[in-house]
Amino acid sequence: MIPMDVGGRVGRLRTVLGAAGCDALLVTSLTNVRWLTGFSGSAGRVVVLPDELVLVTDGRYGDQARLELAGVDGRVAEGRNLAAQLDSLVDLVAGVRRLGLEAEHVSWAAHQGYAGAFGSELVATTGLVEGLRLVKDAGEVARIETAADIASEALAHVLPLLADEPAETEFETIVAAGPNGGFPHHRPDARRIVEGDLLVVDFGALVDGYHSDMTRTVAVGEPSPERAELLALVTEAEALGVAAVRAGIDAKAVDAACRDYIIAAGWGERFTHGTGHGVGLLIHEAPWVNATSTDVLGEGTVVTVEPGVYRGGLGGARVEDTVIVTSDGCRPLTKTPKDLSCLR
Amino acid sequence: MIPMDVGGRVGRLRTVLGAAGCDALLVTSLTNVRWLTGFSGSAGRVVVLPDELVLVTDGRYGDQARLELAGVDGRVAEGRNLAAQLDSLVDLVAGVRRLGLEAEHVSWAAHQGYAGAFGSELVATTGLVEGLRLVKDAGEVARIETAADIASEALAHVLPLLADEPAETEFETIVAAGPNGGFPHHRPDARRIVEGDLLVVDFGALVDGYHSDMTRTVAVGEPSPERAELLALVTEAEALGVAAVRAGIDAKAVDAACRDYIIAAGWGERFTHGTGHGVGLLIHEAPWVNATSTDVLGEGTVVTVEPGVYRGGLGGARVEDTVIVTSDGCRPLTKTPKDLSCLR
Repeated sequence: MIPMDVGGRVGRLRTVLGAAGCDALLVTSLTNVRWLTGFSGSAGRVVVLPDELVLVTDGRYGDQARLELAGVDGRVAEGRNLAAQLDSLVDLVAGVRRLGLEAEHVSWAAHQGYAGAFGSELVATTGLVEGLRLVKDAGEVARIETAADIASEALAHVLPLLADEPAETEFETIVAAGPNGGFPHHRPDARRIVEGDLLVVDFGALVDGYHSDMTRTVAVGEPSPERAELLALVTEAEALGVAAVRAGIDAKAVDAACRDYIIAAGWGERFTHGTGHGVGLLIHEAPWVNATSTDVLGEGTVVTVEPGVYRGGLGGARVEDTVIVTSDGCRPLTKTPKDLSCLR
Repeated sequence: MIPMDVGGRVGRLRTVLGAAGCDALLVTSLTNVRWLTGFSGSAGRVVVLPDELVLVTDGRYGDQARLELAGVDGRVAEGRNLAAQLDSLVDLVAGVRRLGLEAEHVSWAAHQGYAGAFGSELVATTGLVEGLRLVKDAGEVARIETAADIASEALAHVLPLLADEPAETEFETIVAAGPNGGFPHHRPDARRIVEGDLLVVDFGALVDGYHSDMTRTVAVGEPSPERAELLALVTEAEALGVAAVRAGIDAKAVDAACRDYIIAAGWGERFTHGTGHGVGLLIHEAPWVNATSTDVLGEGTVVTVEPGVYRGGLGGARVEDTVIVTSDGCRPLTKTPKDLSCLR
C-alpha cells in the first residue's frame, strides 16, 4: 500500500492557524486527531503549538499512541483520568495567548470547562483540519480505492445468493427490498426478498480507517415496467451527475445535473436527499454535494454521486459511485457495473 | 420480545425539567432522541414542551419517524434542510422562557447558533435523559440479554476455528493475541494466532438498538505458567468485582474489589483502565465503574465488570461480564463460562 504523508500534515495546519486568529489549536475531533497524527484510539486530544505537537490520551492508549505517532514530529502525554489530562492541557497551553478550539467538535459543556481552566483567549474555529482533509494524498486514495474494490468483490459474492430468497437481515449493510426501498435509509428487517423487487444495496468497506461507499439497485427477477423505468431514470441521473464532476465546478451544479433530470421526469419530490458527499476517514464528510452547498470541488477530492427516487409501496432506486475529482473530470473508484440483475 | 415502555418516558422527563431550571428541553443527543421516542434515524432533534413533543427531522426520515413514533404522544416535523429545521425549532420554542439544552450534546458552534436564533434563555443541562436511562425496563433488559446470548453463541461458534491458525482479522471484533493483547484496545491485525497465546476476545451484539458487551481471554493450546497465572489473577479479580455488585453500592467500591486484588498481586500499574461501565443504547454509558466515580449502582442498572492486566510482550488478559443490578446482588446477562480453552 502506498504510504500516506501523515508527518507532513501538522506543518500544513500551522500555515492556516494565523489566518484563523489562533496562536495554537486544540484538536478534539477524533477524526481530525487521526488525520493529523495517525492515532486511531477512541480517546485523545492534540495540542498544536507553534513548535510542538502533543497528543494527550489515557492509560489504555499510551503504548499504541507512541507506536502510531512514530512518523510524526510530536510526543504523547498520558493522563490516567480526565482530571489529569486536563492538567496536562493546562500546562501545555500556559503560554498561548489565542487558543483555537474546534467549535463544531467541542461541546458547550466542554467549552465552559476549558474557559474556566485555561488562561488563553478561546477562539471558535470551524473546518480548519477538515479543509486540509478535503484533498486526499496518493496513500489516502489507495486506501479508499482498495476499500471500494473490497466492496465490489463483496457485492459480486452476495448477488448470486439473492436467488435463494434470503431475508434482508442476512446482509450486514443497508439493504432495502421492495416497499422498504421506499425509505431512503431503511435498515434491514426480516422481510423476505421476493420476485420483482428492486433491491437497494448500500455497501461500504473500511481500509486502514478509510471508507468506500457505493449503492446499486438490483432487480430481483423481472421487474414490472414501472420499476424498470424508475431504475433507468435513476441510473441515467447518476451518469449525468458523474459526467458533471470536474475540478473547479460548484458542488451544487453536480446536484443540479442529477436533480434537473429527475424533476423533468416528474419525480423531483421523491428525490428527498442531497446528491452526494465527500468520503475519507468519515463515510460522510465535506464537500457536500446538494442544492444549497457552497462547496467547490477541488482536484484530488473524493465524492459520491448518489441520486435516489423513493416511491413508497412500489419501491425505491438509488445508484451511487465514489469518484476522485481530476482536472478535467473524474475517475470512478467504484468499478461495479450498473446493470446488475439477479435471476430466479 | 417483551415490549419497551417508550410512550411513558417523556412524562418521566417532564417531571425532572423544573428542578433543572427549564420550562422545555431541546434533546439533541441521538441516543436520547431514540430512548425518548423510538426514532432510530441518524438526524433528528426533539423539542419537549410542557404539553407537546415534536421530533424535527429531514426529508429522508419523515415516513420512518412517523412509523417509529406510533406509540408516543408526539408529532413529526420535517424540514428539507438545516435552515428549514431551524425555522421549525424557532417556531416551536417561541413561547418558552427557559429552554434547556443538553450541554454535553450541543457543540459550542451550535450553542452560538441557537443563542442567535432563539428568544429563550438557554439553560445548560447535564444528564437529564441519561439519568432516566440508567434503570432499564423489562423490555430493555430483554434486548440486552438477547444480545448477550447472541454474542455467547457467536463465541461458541468461533472458538473451534482458532485451532486452524486464522489471522486476527478474520474476526470482526476486538481480538488481540499474544503481544498485541498487551494493548488494551488493540484492533485486529494480520498477526497469526500461535500456540501458547492468550487471546483477548471482546465481543458484543446489538438487538433493536441495545448492546451487550463481554470479554473472554482464551488460552490457545497450553499457556506458559506465567500466562496461566495472569489469566487466573484476572479471572479471580473479575469474580470479586461481580460479587461486590448490589443495589446501593458505590461504583468505586466495585472497582476497588477488582483493583485491590490486582494491586495485592503486584500488577496494579498494569490495570490501566476502569473496571466497567453501563450498557444500553450505548455500548459505554453511565454509570461509570472506576476509582474516581461518584455513581451509585441502582436496582435495574446494567453494568459491565471487566478488569484487565496487560503485560506487553507476554500478552494481556481481560475478563468481562455484563450484569443487571438487583436488590441483593446481580444477575449475569453474560452466560459464557470463563474456563475456555482452545486445543491445537
